[in-house]
Amino acid sequence: MLNPTVKAHLEARWERYLSALCEMLRFPSLAAVKDPDGCRPCAEWIAARLRELGLSAEILPTAGQPCVLAERQTVEASRPTLLVYCHYDVQPPDPLEEWTSPPFEPTIREGRLYARGASDDKGQLMMHLMAIDAWNQAAGGPPIHLKILVEGEEEIGSPHMEAFLREHRHRLSADALVISDVGFFADGCPSILSGLRGLCAFDVTFHGPSRDVHSGLEGGVVANPLNALARLIAAFHDENGRVNVPGFYDDVIPLSDEQRAAWAKLPHDDAARARALGVECLGGGEKGLPTLERNWARPTLECNGLHGGYAGPGAKTIIPARATAKFSLRLVAEQDPEKIFSAIETFVREHTPPGIRAEVTRHAFSRPVRLPADTPAMRAGRAAMAEAFGQDPVLIGCGASVPVTEVFQRVLGLDAAMLGISLPEDHLHSPNESLKLDQLRRGAEMIAAFYGNLAEESSLSRRS
Amino acid sequence: MLNPTVKAHLEARWERYLSALCEMLRFPSLAAVKDPDGCRPCAEWIAARLRELGLSAEILPTAGQPCVLAERQTVEASRPTLLVYCHYDVQPPDPLEEWTSPPFEPTIREGRLYARGASDDKGQLMMHLMAIDAWNQAAGGPPIHLKILVEGEEEIGSPHMEAFLREHRHRLSADALVISDVGFFADGCPSILSGLRGLCAFDVTFHGPSRDVHSGLEGGVVANPLNALARLIAAFHDENGRVNVPGFYDDVIPLSDEQRAAWAKLPHDDAARARALGVECLGGGEKGLPTLERNWARPTLECNGLHGGYAGPGAKTIIPARATAKFSLRLVAEQDPEKIFSAIETFVREHTPPGIRAEVTRHAFSRPVRLPADTPAMRAGRAAMAEAFGQDPVLIGCGASVPVTEVFQRVLGLDAAMLGISLPEDHLHSPNESLKLDQLRRGAEMIAAFYGNLAEESSLSRRS
Repeated sequence: MLNPTVKAHLEARWERYLSALCEMLRFPSLAAVKDPDGCRPCAEWIAARLRELGLSAEILPTAGQPCVLAERQTVEASRPTLLVYCHYDVQPPDPLEEWTSPPFEPTIREGRLYARGASDDKGQLMMHLMAIDAWNQAAGGPPIHLKILVEGEEEIGSPHMEAFLREHRHRLSADALVISDVGFFADGCPSILSGLRGLCAFDVTFHGPSRDVHSGLEGGVVANPLNALARLIAAFHDENGRVNVPGFYDDVIPLSDEQRAAWAKLPHDDAARARALGVECLGGGEKGLPTLERNWARPTLECNGLHGGYAGPGAKTIIPARATAKFSLRLVAEQDPEKIFSAIETFVREHTPPGIRAEVTRHAFSRPVRLPADTPAMRAGRAAMAEAFGQDPVLIGCGASVPVTEVFQRVLGLDAAMLGISLPEDHLHSPNESLKLDQLRRGAEMIAAFYGNLAEESSLSRRS
Repeated sequence: MLNPTVKAHLEARWERYLSALCEMLRFPSLAAVKDPDGCRPCAEWIAARLRELGLSAEILPTAGQPCVLAERQTVEASRPTLLVYCHYDVQPPDPLEEWTSPPFEPTIREGRLYARGASDDKGQLMMHLMAIDAWNQAAGGPPIHLKILVEGEEEIGSPHMEAFLREHRHRLSADALVISDVGFFADGCPSILSGLRGLCAFDVTFHGPSRDVHSGLEGGVVANPLNALARLIAAFHDENGRVNVPGFYDDVIPLSDEQRAAWAKLPHDDAARARALGVECLGGGEKGLPTLERNWARPTLECNGLHGGYAGPGAKTIIPARATAKFSLRLVAEQDPEKIFSAIETFVREHTPPGIRAEVTRHAFSRPVRLPADTPAMRAGRAAMAEAFGQDPVLIGCGASVPVTEVFQRVLGLDAAMLGISLPEDHLHSPNESLKLDQLRRGAEMIAAFYGNLAEESSLSRRS
């Protein structure tokens, strides 16, 4: 049960929370851009807010963008310690011309707050700041020990979080972990994640002639890096949408009939989803499988960008010197990104034609994650979500990756409860990202209730 | 025999010719950029120079960039009329960062003049201006009637030349046609073209979701326009490098044994050409055929540019909303670009997967050309080339297209003599385009001699 005084404070102080979130959203905190000063102002702003809330906040360096780490002990030493994870970095905002209002000028329209990062993930961090503030006002502080970790490189795959968690593993030690960087299956359908796909991101560059050459004078003579790269990308899949790389499916576990039946009951409609995406039909993934199974339980290989040769108006009759494609694989079950990447490298080598030189560059890697549903944090989270949103959450999968989830499991032995509020219509990673304000309002109530529920979970077992 | 006084004037006035060419090269006369004022200053500069040389020069509009047309009658009415064709527009200079000196600041290094258009085609137009000037100095004018046509849209496939030639067909009527927009097989190997490949240029855009979407949340759900476009491009060729489009080879005529034997004698070396292009081996075109046959006698399909999705540093895990590829086909023998394009459109439609919408945009079209070797202009040209360059020219094919050549045949009934001086190392269409100054020097002698030889060709037969 959410403390009614806490709830009243959340309501009374709504305007100031909204104004603080807008301040945070004005920072263009892009981890993908290699500017060490690009993210720090946002980290400093967050640390200052956490100090105002009575936590001891520090900015800790990594080999990339810094993390914010804040702590606060509650009076009763026997209370459990909760580690909260969010991230303050955001996806690049391009293509800029498709935004209705500028990505770093938060704008409210029809009950939604539009800005890059509104939903992913600054709005979800804001839920925690709101919950702490309301507990401060109502009861002098939250009823549990809190450790708040806010990362600055989630959107580039958290490349330095494993080293960071190892270095600070004693300071980060906790009884429970909540990650707020996820969302609902649909508006009005509160959801808790049972797993996440893993990630393996890399670039392939094909090098041809030492300069762009004339497509007539050299056409039929020199191998074309674009034609060759297209052949590689086409070879990655067979006619049925299955990935063609040898060994790719070795560690994929078929979905159980039970799980398939549970997912079939979710309020999903292919035609509605196609409409929301602006396509005639859902043509992605392996043929013959239901959409949710393709999205949550099957691995995928997507080309995220491909650039080579002339991009201007009209024709320019050249064979380009080079072309680069960016890829992200989503992995499931027991697939190991290192093993998969190694198979990909071999495949690229075998599909590099004579006269072309291949270069493969690795980016983010993360393992797939499965999360047990019966931990104290999960129980506390499910009850809090049910109370704040008025109905029991459903257990769902997720096609995306939050790479750090698996690192928390491996390094700190903590299974996360994923409590998030984004909605499919929030346009994460797309132009015109937004957050439904009512989700933020109820999300803060959920988090405040979660802190309280966790304090009452008598069965919390300490893990190191 | 080149008149020795003409030759002496060419030598004496070299510095002023070079300075004039540099002036012309400073105009960024890009037909591909849709700025109607972008090309006009260059056209006006050329018209002014032609007037200084005693021709009546006009700038004539087309539906695109304007043409320069200049005329001069010689005193003896019985002399033949020669139509000269060159173009003043140039290829886009990108990628700019690969130029050693800026593309529109002509710079001399080691006997070469570096600038966009130096070889293609302003330097070749300059040969004619030089020859007219030297004839003016030596004999009061060239010994033939001259019509000089300088186009402004060759590099985008001369889309308005057919209409222009039809409109002005009486003013353009001539006994012979010379096109100076071609080159030698190799330095020290003067060459005359027996044919040119045709061209069919078009774009294909694949549209997917209405915005860039998250590659995890939608991966396996929605069809990826980049993956799909790569599959289309791959499908265009079979394993042996043959174009897979039904009917594509119907009008291709196999090379005769005689022609194959003649080309085998040319000073060509695969390894040297690969080195010059910066590749390990020549991997383009159909497997099992000699390089010159692949380049001159076989059609090709090249992707000139492909752009979609994220292009920045690191990873951005999206499925892009759309992707566009630009293509140029080179055609041979009896292949008709309209018929081929129609087959391509059908092929694209059949290779557009569910959930993707295709858009095909046509650009330049031109038919392949074969040029008879025994016309008066060809005889005059071969003799002039032999004299200026010290050896008999070889008869070669060409992988490129000069689309207007076929239009001249069809509309004016004129078979061109192709007299040009570019060299393979001139880097046409590439960064650091240049012109070997000695080629310009001798090229002007060749043109001056050609004018004289043509005056003496008694057997010139008038064609309408």
